Amino acid sequence: SNEVKGSVNYFGSTLLDRRSDKRTNSEWLSKKQSHPTTVYILFSNLSPLVTLRGGVESSQQPEVKLCRLYHKDVEQYMNQTEESILIFLGVELELHMNLLAVHNGRVLQEDEEDGLVAWFALSVDSASAEKFKQNHEDCYFLQPPLPALLQLPEKEAGVVAQARSVLAWHKRYRFCPTCGSATKTEEGGYKKTCLKEDCCSLKGVHNTSYPRVDPVVIMQVIHPDGNHCLLGRKKTSPPGWFTCLAGFVEPGETIEDAVRREVKEEAGVKVGHVQYVSCQPWPMPSSLMIGCLAVAVSTEIKVDRSEIEDARWFSREQVMEVVFKGNQCSFLIPPSQAIAHQLIKHWVGMNANL
Amino acid sequence: SNEVKGSVNYFGSTLLDRRSDKRTNSEWLSKKQSHPTTVYILFSNLSPLVTLRGGVESSQQPEVKLCRLYHKDVEQYMNQTEESILIFLGVELELHMNLLAVHNGRVLQEDEEDGLVAWFALSVDSASAEKFKQNHEDCYFLQPPLPALLQLPEKEAGVVAQARSVLAWHKRYRFCPTCGSATKTEEGGYKKTCLKEDCCSLKGVHNTSYPRVDPVVIMQVIHPDGNHCLLGRKKTSPPGWFTCLAGFVEPGETIEDAVRREVKEEAGVKVGHVQYVSCQPWPMPSSLMIGCLAVAVSTEIKVDRSEIEDARWFSREQVMEVVFKGNQCSFLIPPSQAIAHQLIKHWVGMNANL
Ligand SMILES: Nc1ncnc2c1ncn2[C@@H]1O[C@H](COP(=O)(O)O)[C@@H](O)[C@H]1O
Ligand SMILES: Nc1ncnc2c1ncn2[C@@H]1O[C@H](COP(=O)(O)O)[C@@H](O)[C@H]1O
Repeated sequence: SNEVKGSVNYFGSTLLDRRSDKRTNSEWLSKKQSHPTTVYILFSNLSPLVTLRGGVESSQQPEVKLCRLYHKDVEQYMNQTEESILIFLGVELELHMNLLAVHNGRVLQEDEEDGLVAWFALSVDSASAEKFKQNHEDCYFLQPPLPALLQLPEKEAGVVAQARSVLAWHKRYRFCPTCGSATKTEEGGYKKTCLKEDCCSLKGVHNTSYPRVDPVVIMQVIHPDGNHCLLGRKKTSPPGWFTCLAGFVEPGETIEDAVRREVKEEAGVKVGHVQYVSCQPWPMPSSLMIGCLAVAVSTEIKVDRSEIEDARWFSREQVMEVVFKGNQCSFLIPPSQAIAHQLIKHWVGMNANL
Repeated sequence: SNEVKGSVNYFGSTLLDRRSDKRTNSEWLSKKQSHPTTVYILFSNLSPLVTLRGGVESSQQPEVKLCRLYHKDVEQYMNQTEESILIFLGVELELHMNLLAVHNGRVLQEDEEDGLVAWFALSVDSASAEKFKQNHEDCYFLQPPLPALLQLPEKEAGVVAQARSVLAWHKRYRFCPTCGSATKTEEGGYKKTCLKEDCCSLKGVHNTSYPRVDPVVIMQVIHPDGNHCLLGRKKTSPPGWFTCLAGFVEPGETIEDAVRREVKEEAGVKVGHVQYVSCQPWPMPSSLMIGCLAVAVSTEIKVDRSEIEDARWFSREQVMEVVFKGNQCSFLIPPSQAIAHQLIKHWVGMNANL
């Protein structure tokens, strides 16, 4: 199986149906937890456990893949410490489809096996992670997350994006932000409830109980001449690397205004028309990258050095070279798994004979 | 001034430039706080202080508007209690434009008056709010937020959306979610920093320090025949009221997949193609409503009663009637200030002679 990496859907394409309706069904969840077909993926410090397939004995390039573990493999590491967290990720999509065909709409009996293959993410503390690695020498935790996570097959990257975002929320939001008390985890790992009885976060529905997703705008800014685009680099970017400008959407702001504000702030360029193109979940820790085309109405660049290190207009020819020839160029753009790459590529093909 | 209410930009259109660069300039902020032209808007329990303009003596319909207060009006209510919160909202856009023309690019001297009219939101506790109302009998706090906030002129609604979202974050996120300690507010109200010296939220950049914005998808679902759309109602909806389906984007999910998941979950309808249309900040407390058209590929409705009360296909004629004739109809849709209204209206005008 040679999944194509780096499509528009990297981190957004998944092999699971989330089945959020099962999150409140604790009986079903606990049955699935010990079911022999249930798949566990293991995390330590927000990094997933992987192994190599192919490799020395095969003719293929070795390829990173998630370790699919079973209840018997992880049993001893569950609920061991306060730090261990279990997230219900969903059920396998393809099998699910087949089953629907088999059951042919018939409603299952109360106790009947539904045949769904459930997936869980289990996060363990460092000591358990060490112990696990000693018992499974062919496995390792993918670290640091970037660029390592980009080695995963696309559909597994989607599962990891979901798990990593929810786990990062658990790690950062351990206490009730409204009153500072401890919390308990519910609904398959998708809800945290304050343990202080009279906390006002318990009255009504509050976002404090649910995982956080941060919307970010990322934009390919087009020169008024239509034949140049604006790319920038951060101080922390690898040498020669340029990419689309980006920034967090603020409270009370539209996507389109966030694009205009960020381009003005970072590069001093005024943007008029903004158009949504596509989006990408980005699990560092839990962003939703909203990709847009933005048409500049001014051209003079004034870089805000507190935000970025440099920003320049690049010609369509320069950009085509780097998109299609890769690293024999005068500058570099992010890899194809990143939405920035896809936005840049999208623009390269637009109105190309202006 | 008769602002048009209920355009696509309600809650998203503002009379301010946020000037986020000033948030870290505490000297500038403190100078502006006591500057005589600085505008303060007052909040109590997330409701803005308003007054009526026009009214009995004028021929116009009375119109709700924000009370624009000055330093002298609010001075005695500032920093009085732990509950008082001050947010820097930005500077007036129009004046800002004029000034740019006047200064003509010349860099201002260190101590020179920049002429910018700053706006702050001040949230006070109930006791101060009571006291304030006793001294200003023509003013009142707009409550409950819905539908009252929809009475504001569009550009003021945008200012209120920004202020209310940030204030709601302060109210709900008083303690460090990572360690449960108290926090201090910085950067004009846009950052909260943990006061525990060795808290890991202080190492690197963490979203726990920044206001939360929750992305929500809201979708006009189109029947495969192109001439019907799917609208639903919640148990809590007013009688006869139907609107677009909606739901929170989950961690690791694209906008398009969130649309498909929510429509499947709530109404049992399968969606294929999804297309972004427009968005709207929704300050209840701090959502970003992402409006889409979604093309259904199945038609049978199976309502999930735990999520909604009803969902039905409505014909284009039925919907046209309610959009253009309003409340003499068999059902109701949200008012024009809501993105749901705009999405429905957008569809009504599309491919109308299919
Ligand atoms: N960030 C969030 N804030 C509030 N509710 C959320 C959030 N994320 C998921 N939910 C779920 O969405 C439900 C409310 O949805 P709604 O009725 O559409 O506002 C809640 O009962 C939660 O189960
Ligand atoms: N939710 C958020 N998470 C992290 N940083 C944020 C957030 N909202 C605003 N910021 C700001 O964005 C900066 C990081 O932006 P970036 O370098 O683009 O990741 C931080 O230094 C903050 O000033």
